[in-house]
Amino acid sequence: MRVAIVGGGQLARMMAPSFAELGIDARVLVESIGVSADQVYADTVVGAANSLDSIRRIVYGLDATELAKADVLTFEHEHVPSQIIEQISQEGFNVFPSAEALLYAQDKLAMREKLLAEGLPCPKFAKISTERDLVRFFDTLQAKEVVLKTPRGGYDGKGVEIIDTPSSKFVAKWLEEHPAILAEEKVDFAFEASSVVVRSSRGEVKAYETVLSHQENGVCRYVVAPAPGLSVEQQQKAQSIAIKVAQKLDVVGVLAVEMFVTKAGNFLINELAMRPHNTGHWSINGAVTSQFENHIRAVLGLKLGDTARINPEQYTVMGNILGSKRTALSEAIPAALAHNSGAKLNLYGKEIRPGRKLGHINISGENWQKLLEDALWIVELFEGKH
Amino acid sequence: MRVAIVGGGQLARMMAPSFAELGIDARVLVESIGVSADQVYADTVVGAANSLDSIRRIVYGLDATELAKADVLTFEHEHVPSQIIEQISQEGFNVFPSAEALLYAQDKLAMREKLLAEGLPCPKFAKISTERDLVRFFDTLQAKEVVLKTPRGGYDGKGVEIIDTPSSKFVAKWLEEHPAILAEEKVDFAFEASSVVVRSSRGEVKAYETVLSHQENGVCRYVVAPAPGLSVEQQQKAQSIAIKVAQKLDVVGVLAVEMFVTKAGNFLINELAMRPHNTGHWSINGAVTSQFENHIRAVLGLKLGDTARINPEQYTVMGNILGSKRTALSEAIPAALAHNSGAKLNLYGKEIRPGRKLGHINISGENWQKLLEDALWIVELFEGKH
Repeated sequence: MRVAIVGGGQLARMMAPSFAELGIDARVLVESIGVSADQVYADTVVGAANSLDSIRRIVYGLDATELAKADVLTFEHEHVPSQIIEQISQEGFNVFPSAEALLYAQDKLAMREKLLAEGLPCPKFAKISTERDLVRFFDTLQAKEVVLKTPRGGYDGKGVEIIDTPSSKFVAKWLEEHPAILAEEKVDFAFEASSVVVRSSRGEVKAYETVLSHQENGVCRYVVAPAPGLSVEQQQKAQSIAIKVAQKLDVVGVLAVEMFVTKAGNFLINELAMRPHNTGHWSINGAVTSQFENHIRAVLGLKLGDTARINPEQYTVMGNILGSKRTALSEAIPAALAHNSGAKLNLYGKEIRPGRKLGHINISGENWQKLLEDALWIVELFEGKH
Repeated sequence: MRVAIVGGGQLARMMAPSFAELGIDARVLVESIGVSADQVYADTVVGAANSLDSIRRIVYGLDATELAKADVLTFEHEHVPSQIIEQISQEGFNVFPSAEALLYAQDKLAMREKLLAEGLPCPKFAKISTERDLVRFFDTLQAKEVVLKTPRGGYDGKGVEIIDTPSSKFVAKWLEEHPAILAEEKVDFAFEASSVVVRSSRGEVKAYETVLSHQENGVCRYVVAPAPGLSVEQQQKAQSIAIKVAQKLDVVGVLAVEMFVTKAGNFLINELAMRPHNTGHWSINGAVTSQFENHIRAVLGLKLGDTARINPEQYTVMGNILGSKRTALSEAIPAALAHNSGAKLNLYGKEIRPGRKLGHINISGENWQKLLEDALWIVELFEGKH
């Protein structure tokens, strides 16, 4: 069995241990030699995610023999053009998630309209084609502020702005670049949560426990799994929302549903990602089957692994290490490992750029506040703060 | 940081996930292209473990720049000649375990004499240079049978024979091949146990819980971690014996101490291995830090990771998949994963040969007999028995 993966970043990298363990071959399309995933796979191809030729090289293999072909094509990001996905599909390969499903992770406007049609809970929103549409939306909401989003190309807080007037400079700028943009109510949430689910090509679906996801400057800073603030009923509610999204959008593979938890305790869907997700990294050490192994099992149509916690008495806290002034992360490894003998380090082998996700720390135990303290101390060590 | 490893088998392969996670580089000397470890590392060199040139290539790197050099050389087996280890040491590299320590894993006679001198519990034994020595040992023991061992080169039951007469054909044959051989009392044990410990180059030492190790035809069939038959005092006793071995023999890295548990509940040391060991594979899924990650941390002089179970309420059962008449293991993956959603598969990507270790299954839970049933069902599936 062989899986072809598009993308040479940390998400492809973190699938490598699962491929090795399952004894399943992988061939990875990487942006250039030496990038994160290229360091840990034996079989990589350098090429672009928007090139049909490059993608053909990972699905057919060098010599295009039956033995060299991949059984399935999947992605670690959403940047493969849908025409390429459809073409590879038409050539007889399984491609998961499909172009139809991936659209809803690529285009936020399409996502909102689909979720609304399926009766799934979302913030109030409007499709904005002119400044007049925005004036109307401000009026309808009776709110001082509105969240403006580009439908495509945003990530980690980019392509998202909070505006207090329909004549904001972003409206004109983004309307030049996109046929329409998205305006949403600014939700006054208690905290942000994420439900990671996995659905196989045979329709089997399993949910990981819903986590608390804490953002700073639009980037995830830490995750607590499971989310400390949720009742059993809320846990189940959030998981069932995410499962319904996976089923209604026909997602195959891992799906992360990021949600706002309102002060009244309800969920509103914020973002979708159709791939292993930052808010699921805790599962590498905290769950029986990691999101990476389950993504592989899902796209190959294998039975899914147990998504439960290994130790139901314990939380797992995940802290993201971001790029800072420190120029060599490896200098910090000795002190990081010395700080807590249960800390599970995961460095991505990426070039350092300010704010870039370079690695994470998982720590498990019963007192999540204490775990968070230790995780953030280690994160800050890697960020040169001590 | 970079580690050079000798050996392209499953033990080197199973270190790969830990290297990727810790963000530490690895360069592996493999026997030939496509062997087990070669499939999962980006940086491998083909060469022989008994060639100084080959080993120089993994410690110096291709261009022998400071950046390309390894920080430490280690092994996944004990077959590197001590002269080579000493030479690399003299060239200024850290080599762990050292040639002095490794001798006791390479030469069973040297091991027995050292353990005896250190007051560690061993079966009664004698160094046999002539058939007369063996007659005398039979007389001293007053036993019908004696275990005969070649001091070097044995593994998985090879180089070990039970004889009932000093004139056995093995005595003459092995005395031609070795200057002396080893005779030991045949211990009437209740079961076999193994204590895996890890000791760092800075002297820090940690023990994994002692496991039950069940052998069939001289090969480990399954492991139950922790060993169900041991009291808390016995667990501690076995761990303290293994820790003393590591300290007295100055072992750096993982050390497995295989022991007989006598019917009176005492421990007698059977074999030593100075590397990650089959009886420690359960730690990949059952312990906070796997034996593979801790081996890397130990040889680099990093603080060791927690060796405790992730869930102290659970056992982990490990079952070995051996080569059989089945010609393609991947055929069995779907049914194996469908049998138990908590089963953690680990296939080594090795060519199938009868009796060869090709992979293992770990399953964790509270009822070890039930886990064992499930593990063995999956093992037998891979062995073509259903």
